[in-house]
Amino acid sequence: MTDTKILLDESEIPTHWYNVVADMPNPPAPYLGPDGQLLTPDAMQAIFPPAIIEQEMSSQRWIEIPNEVREILRLWRPAPLYRAHRLEQALGTPAKIYFKYEGVSPAGSHKVNSAVAQAWYNREAGIKRLTTETGAGQWGSSLSLAGSMFGLQVRIYMVKVSHGQKPFRRSMMQTWGGEVIPSPSMHTEAGRRVLAADPDNQGSLGTAISEAVEEAASRSDTNYALGSVLNHVLLHQTVIGLEAKKQLEKVGDYPDVIFAPCGGGSNVGGMMFPFLADKAAGRDIRLVAVEPDSCPTLTRGHYAYDFGDVAGLTPMMKMYTLGHDFMPPGIHAGGLRYHGDSALVSQLYHEGILEAVAVPQLGTFESGVLFSKTMGIIPAPESNHAVHAAIQEALRCKESGEAKTILFTLSGHGHFDMASYDKYLAGELQNYSYPDEAIRAALATLPKV
Amino acid sequence: MTDTKILLDESEIPTHWYNVVADMPNPPAPYLGPDGQLLTPDAMQAIFPPAIIEQEMSSQRWIEIPNEVREILRLWRPAPLYRAHRLEQALGTPAKIYFKYEGVSPAGSHKVNSAVAQAWYNREAGIKRLTTETGAGQWGSSLSLAGSMFGLQVRIYMVKVSHGQKPFRRSMMQTWGGEVIPSPSMHTEAGRRVLAADPDNQGSLGTAISEAVEEAASRSDTNYALGSVLNHVLLHQTVIGLEAKKQLEKVGDYPDVIFAPCGGGSNVGGMMFPFLADKAAGRDIRLVAVEPDSCPTLTRGHYAYDFGDVAGLTPMMKMYTLGHDFMPPGIHAGGLRYHGDSALVSQLYHEGILEAVAVPQLGTFESGVLFSKTMGIIPAPESNHAVHAAIQEALRCKESGEAKTILFTLSGHGHFDMASYDKYLAGELQNYSYPDEAIRAALATLPKV
Repeated sequence: MTDTKILLDESEIPTHWYNVVADMPNPPAPYLGPDGQLLTPDAMQAIFPPAIIEQEMSSQRWIEIPNEVREILRLWRPAPLYRAHRLEQALGTPAKIYFKYEGVSPAGSHKVNSAVAQAWYNREAGIKRLTTETGAGQWGSSLSLAGSMFGLQVRIYMVKVSHGQKPFRRSMMQTWGGEVIPSPSMHTEAGRRVLAADPDNQGSLGTAISEAVEEAASRSDTNYALGSVLNHVLLHQTVIGLEAKKQLEKVGDYPDVIFAPCGGGSNVGGMMFPFLADKAAGRDIRLVAVEPDSCPTLTRGHYAYDFGDVAGLTPMMKMYTLGHDFMPPGIHAGGLRYHGDSALVSQLYHEGILEAVAVPQLGTFESGVLFSKTMGIIPAPESNHAVHAAIQEALRCKESGEAKTILFTLSGHGHFDMASYDKYLAGELQNYSYPDEAIRAALATLPKV
Repeated sequence: MTDTKILLDESEIPTHWYNVVADMPNPPAPYLGPDGQLLTPDAMQAIFPPAIIEQEMSSQRWIEIPNEVREILRLWRPAPLYRAHRLEQALGTPAKIYFKYEGVSPAGSHKVNSAVAQAWYNREAGIKRLTTETGAGQWGSSLSLAGSMFGLQVRIYMVKVSHGQKPFRRSMMQTWGGEVIPSPSMHTEAGRRVLAADPDNQGSLGTAISEAVEEAASRSDTNYALGSVLNHVLLHQTVIGLEAKKQLEKVGDYPDVIFAPCGGGSNVGGMMFPFLADKAAGRDIRLVAVEPDSCPTLTRGHYAYDFGDVAGLTPMMKMYTLGHDFMPPGIHAGGLRYHGDSALVSQLYHEGILEAVAVPQLGTFESGVLFSKTMGIIPAPESNHAVHAAIQEALRCKESGEAKTILFTLSGHGHFDMASYDKYLAGELQNYSYPDEAIRAALATLPKV
């Protein structure tokens, strides 16, 4: 039997990020300003450092990872690749199941891979403070950790309802020195406006983004950092796929199909982009984004220009979207509730290079519990989407007798999400499925460009 | 710069546990029954399987680890040994600081190393169910995970107040299939007696032990499992020290001093016993157990026969104790609140082979936060005791200019203990120090043997 964990040495942490733009059949659709005109790099300088803006626009295939960033990544990378022997046995499948485990990072998910890079580039640009927003808390934790590594102050606008419901994520950010502000707050014009209209407002990711961006734009020592969607974030996450490829090579294997959870696209880009060049070169591999039934962006949305945030403050990106004021139900995979998707992921899906599948909430938890009981690790609810799709594929292999090689991203652990397991085990969760009219009504709100 | 993480392959998971009894200057003091007479192996058969009883009494130096147990350990072992470069730099110390990180286990601490072995031996003996007690939840989680790996039902009597305060530890146990019963319960005579006298009783570890033991003793398909104190538990934990030794060899290093947190002794035994043979052979190495000021068993207790539980149901062991009804304050390192200590650790301390130090609660959190900000990982409050002692030693090295090699056990992460970090950051925690009279009064309750 092969080992359970396929490990790499620290010397094998990738030296360069892989930029998928270099291998896309068509150049990415440009970002547009709120006025519908092409967005210039200048317009981003109020909130991002030059190196990040350059990465956002770059078509260079390989971009060097700064040594100081690699030094921090060494605290948990290379992340282990697991062969899920015990899960395979429990399913009775001839398929081989591998997963890349990003929950080994101190913040508990893959998010910190980009947080560290963003914090470093900002420090190099002389920035002293970063602002961001957080809902479920994975990104806020990651940026707080990254800030502590490079001596940057980090202020996190945390959606007020999450601030109350997830006190332990808040404590985690504070332990690393981050300042956590329940949003809406009195610190910004955007927050004051919301509170003036509704003093008991419990906040939303849209408002929290507005507060974080407003503060960053108004202070020269402060920038803003985003945890998904944008090209540079997906770029930083490609360490996941690059390592996984090397690890599979070590055991002489190559995936037939890859699954990753899909919210804003950082997992999909991080794991799949490094395999996409092989696919472009003719390799037979399926790359499948897994999203929730309750927020079916790729599978039921439109490919159109839309804002990245609810308030319409961000540039417009061409992406699969359900309309920027689409409000998914309070499902227990907070990281997958985004109304849109990364522009790169969207374009590659539109061109038929990536596939997508939507899965039901109860199925994801059922699969997550089976995974926990066989492999030990309790996955984050977001990660359970990939677990579920991988298990379904393995069961299809059992039917057909095919010994496929399946790879998926286990993007994080569920230690801060046990309340949702609790609800699942108590039978209090449900599936959601939208009637066509609901989707049509949401899409009718798309901006006319 | 050497790597941050020193890794071993799965083939390097130890094949044998190390039994320190073979290298002790004197044989261990025997256990006594409640009647003060020598305890026979027979007396333990109602609650333990034969192989565990044999290990408890064994003086054989090496005991083979069953293959099926090693297969499960492979899910997270070998655990990484870290060189804490960034912590050293922050302290400005010439000392080298290494730590063994046991928080990589799915249950989040070292406890599961013994849980897996105990579950396997019980299954081999035809046992279908295990009972145990849990307070903070680390041991209950570990046994629940181990039970799911070998198809055993696990019932955990969880101290009622913890059951209410730590719902996420409870959900974790339930996700792995464990049954969690708030104690005192109506399932046992012991529980019913407590509830009859006080229907609102919030439980204690003593009552929970009584319930778990009573149920195991009364059912032939059910045994009991304990997470610390006993010889076989410390034996199972020696994988920690055996791996650490091999990892240090890989980088050509050897510790001058080792620190481990000390409650019941499973960390001390697990990390230090494999180094103890070298010390016996003349090697100059200091082995220091770190306990809380608020439960100063080794540093202020008596070396005497005492019961292992509050109710006086267990055999008596010769150990350092503060008296079995000593009730430490509600400090935030629940795993270190035990009134006594492992008999093996106690005897080795009594003979001057192990040292001990007591540290204040605020210092442990201060050190834990510094550790989090430099190394990323947020330690469990128990683990912070070792972190603190290691940092103090490194600071002494800074004074003296000595480039000592310091090794400590980071026994678990703090993901389920963020409420205590919260209190620390809010300035709501305090130190405890007992006046001599309080200690004297507690010791006056020791049984007369």
